[in-house]
Amino acid sequence: MIADLRALEPPQLEDFTNSLVERVIAAVTDKIPHLESSLAVAELTVALHYVLNTPEDALIWDVGHQGYVHKALTGRLNALATMRKSGGISGFLDREESAYDFFGAGHASTSISALTGVCLADKVTGKLRHRVAVIGDGSLTGGQSFEALNHLGSMKEDALVIVNDNEGSIDPTVGALHNQQSYGSYFQSLGWHYTFLERGNDAAALVKVLQQILGKSGPQILHIKTKRPDLSPPKSYQPGTTFQWWASETMGALLTEHQDIQLLSPAMFAGSGFAPLRAVFPDRLIDTGINEAHTVTTAAGIAAAGGRPWVHIYSTFLQRAFDQVLHDVALQELPIVFLVDRAGLVGSDGPTHHGVFDGDFLMNLPGVTVWSPRNGNELQGMLLAAARQIVTGPLFIRYPKARTEGGTPQEFVPYEWLQRTEGASLWLSTGAITDLMKKGENHLHLGQNWPFSDDFGSIMADFEEIHVFEESVGFGGLAGAVKALMEERNHPGKCTVHKLPTAFIEHGVRGELLHKYGLK
Amino acid sequence: MIADLRALEPPQLEDFTNSLVERVIAAVTDKIPHLESSLAVAELTVALHYVLNTPEDALIWDVGHQGYVHKALTGRLNALATMRKSGGISGFLDREESAYDFFGAGHASTSISALTGVCLADKVTGKLRHRVAVIGDGSLTGGQSFEALNHLGSMKEDALVIVNDNEGSIDPTVGALHNQQSYGSYFQSLGWHYTFLERGNDAAALVKVLQQILGKSGPQILHIKTKRPDLSPPKSYQPGTTFQWWASETMGALLTEHQDIQLLSPAMFAGSGFAPLRAVFPDRLIDTGINEAHTVTTAAGIAAAGGRPWVHIYSTFLQRAFDQVLHDVALQELPIVFLVDRAGLVGSDGPTHHGVFDGDFLMNLPGVTVWSPRNGNELQGMLLAAARQIVTGPLFIRYPKARTEGGTPQEFVPYEWLQRTEGASLWLSTGAITDLMKKGENHLHLGQNWPFSDDFGSIMADFEEIHVFEESVGFGGLAGAVKALMEERNHPGKCTVHKLPTAFIEHGVRGELLHKYGLK
Repeated sequence: MIADLRALEPPQLEDFTNSLVERVIAAVTDKIPHLESSLAVAELTVALHYVLNTPEDALIWDVGHQGYVHKALTGRLNALATMRKSGGISGFLDREESAYDFFGAGHASTSISALTGVCLADKVTGKLRHRVAVIGDGSLTGGQSFEALNHLGSMKEDALVIVNDNEGSIDPTVGALHNQQSYGSYFQSLGWHYTFLERGNDAAALVKVLQQILGKSGPQILHIKTKRPDLSPPKSYQPGTTFQWWASETMGALLTEHQDIQLLSPAMFAGSGFAPLRAVFPDRLIDTGINEAHTVTTAAGIAAAGGRPWVHIYSTFLQRAFDQVLHDVALQELPIVFLVDRAGLVGSDGPTHHGVFDGDFLMNLPGVTVWSPRNGNELQGMLLAAARQIVTGPLFIRYPKARTEGGTPQEFVPYEWLQRTEGASLWLSTGAITDLMKKGENHLHLGQNWPFSDDFGSIMADFEEIHVFEESVGFGGLAGAVKALMEERNHPGKCTVHKLPTAFIEHGVRGELLHKYGLK
Repeated sequence: MIADLRALEPPQLEDFTNSLVERVIAAVTDKIPHLESSLAVAELTVALHYVLNTPEDALIWDVGHQGYVHKALTGRLNALATMRKSGGISGFLDREESAYDFFGAGHASTSISALTGVCLADKVTGKLRHRVAVIGDGSLTGGQSFEALNHLGSMKEDALVIVNDNEGSIDPTVGALHNQQSYGSYFQSLGWHYTFLERGNDAAALVKVLQQILGKSGPQILHIKTKRPDLSPPKSYQPGTTFQWWASETMGALLTEHQDIQLLSPAMFAGSGFAPLRAVFPDRLIDTGINEAHTVTTAAGIAAAGGRPWVHIYSTFLQRAFDQVLHDVALQELPIVFLVDRAGLVGSDGPTHHGVFDGDFLMNLPGVTVWSPRNGNELQGMLLAAARQIVTGPLFIRYPKARTEGGTPQEFVPYEWLQRTEGASLWLSTGAITDLMKKGENHLHLGQNWPFSDDFGSIMADFEEIHVFEESVGFGGLAGAVKALMEERNHPGKCTVHKLPTAFIEHGVRGELLHKYGLK
């Protein structure tokens, strides 16, 4: 299809694009919002593959949400029907999938760094090629994009960054740069030549400007405006069925009761369930932009200044604030409540979005408390308990992207017996898998999976074999802490661990994946 | 002393500052380079405490290196003699130490985020106060500073950021912003009012401009130029005595032999031992700025484009690139060699700089290899082996800030028997503590601490009790992996763990701390 494209004359590109878009819409079953992001750059995608000699030229997309048309054009049109399904192609760019996917990306703001790397590599290998990155205006709010612009802007290499400005990532773009539309002076201050094209959905105009700019030397910005098609009404909202819904229900009550609570999110309110609260508390739900490090330190600043910060953050994005959680929050023992959303397997988003690492690393950070509710009722009770400030220092409440019931907040308890017999084996589980798995002859659910209650050691002493179940990757975590306590107390028994393998887990249906890995 | 200061007239501030500086120099035993950074802002420190009503007003310093004069002025002049020593005060700002230390900081680029937090907290608490952050030009290269500027610049709050431009953090500042001196247009593009003062070492001039700016509303930048005094010649270089020296020795040979190797560092070449190589290979030792996320993804871009990237990074700063190491490197299985410097306890820098978390979290990242040499000879052999590309995917070579011998590169082996008897207990150790500790009756040093060699399970099978020694915090790590293998192979014996406690470990002498925690 690339060869067909390159045989066309520029005036023919519009028809080619329209035809391609129709086929993409027909093929993609997972309609919005990622498809909308991709269709917004349909003309750009066609123009880039027309002008560039991909895959020899380096074309890097920031986050794969922009990549559906790119995938269709590069041999994966028929495979789009399988996208994000078990055994199907990825929803993101993937080097394993195609030579045209020059660099994979699941998280935002990395593309200009990767572009910097290509420029540096080509200096030592002598390779001559065009080098292009495409980044959305939302991803520009992530500090790594600035780091890369400032560094690459100081080099004299030929490189092109295309800013796809469609006024919004998943949440509307925030920040002064966007509000002021001061992109030109921003990029120029960082050493880049700046070109603006209003008609970013005009393939022929794009081809013309791309050919001009690619003939110039030095670091180049092409800033284009694109329109995101409005394919369907916003995602329907099913009240009372998810952890996200019950979190929002309770947060609404807490924000009403406690006028000093502020809830921060690094550009993820859309997926949080909290979106309806933004209309009610516009000043107290604060979207900081796609910038997890800043979000976490800002929360620490609020706490240090006498406020009451809560932070909503996806587990997978918490990885981007590891150091800030450690230094700015834990070391300073600041009382911040973290709502760690998408903890555990997320399903169709796959390996870049599974929230399977923080379950382990959080427990290694001194002075933190970690709660993992088994259902909506427990989650609600935990939020109420968190607001009563029963915990000193940072508190992490981890819940999955999953269905659950709620509506009857359960009074917080650190652990709960689900079954108790005379048998010698104890099953320990934490988080939402507790309600999904079959129960052990003795089964203790740990809503508070760290630190352990004072009496936990003596509970364990009653059993010969302890099975630990957790939806997490790694050698530590709950199982590691149980083993350490057994060692400390000279427990003679055995600990058997049931957790996810230390591997990048594929995309698929959450329940099926949990079953495959022995957690359901 | 603050009260004395505030009773003065502006023309008297110069004498006051000079007298204070003399007393600071006399008190501080740890002369350079942090003292130089602090003295560069002596006049600013005096002017700020003169104009502001600290500690009621919020004064936030980015990284504590600027804080020695601040400490002296706020009741800790006599304590400066104990700074960075066992039981003495911290070398960084510390909320526990003084109410004047509004926000702690050991890593760069966090101050404007903390300032954002203060502004947000004051909105809900109604507190009226001045809010000021001081950040160096080096720290501005860290993306978190951009994230915060872009966010706070979009708010209408009164806040002041002072840019202390003394042309360099620990390494000279890099990037287009610094090269072009385009700070004015940069800050304005992010919504800030911008004021420049050349005479940043003139206390009376500073007082005047601070009083003017603090009377204005909205987000304000004051950019000042300061001079760092040159207290003494550069740190003397003792050939052949440290891990850093031997790393540099071998890297010099490797860079000569392999013309495609590029060595990146996020602004830490000064402490790396590699500084002398920069003169020999100016294009291939690449200082990216204080931006670990960008550094790591750039390396991934180099590898994806067919280059051979190596990354020098401190263990404590690797925490800032956790997500990039996971997604951009490990998930894409890219062959990057990481020289993880300052792995383990660092001594006088204390809790924000101990490299004690990556020993655990790296082993949870799928597909990575981790090596931890016991001395300079083994480190040299590892670097040579890494250059022979005997490892697929990312490789982390972890070594401490410590003295060692070298000069006789030891051929790489994954493990090494130091003692072998008929006894039933096995001691396992990894890293530099191997050569510091007393040896077990059977003692195996694991140069490659992850993954295990194929025959490692059968080696363990010969012993009833296994002791694991590692200079690391956490429930996983080497000990966690040993326990997992024992479980997998139904090993009936016992594993006893000797590692650092899950706590923020104080500053002190490295050897003394290792002894205190049972690792020496």
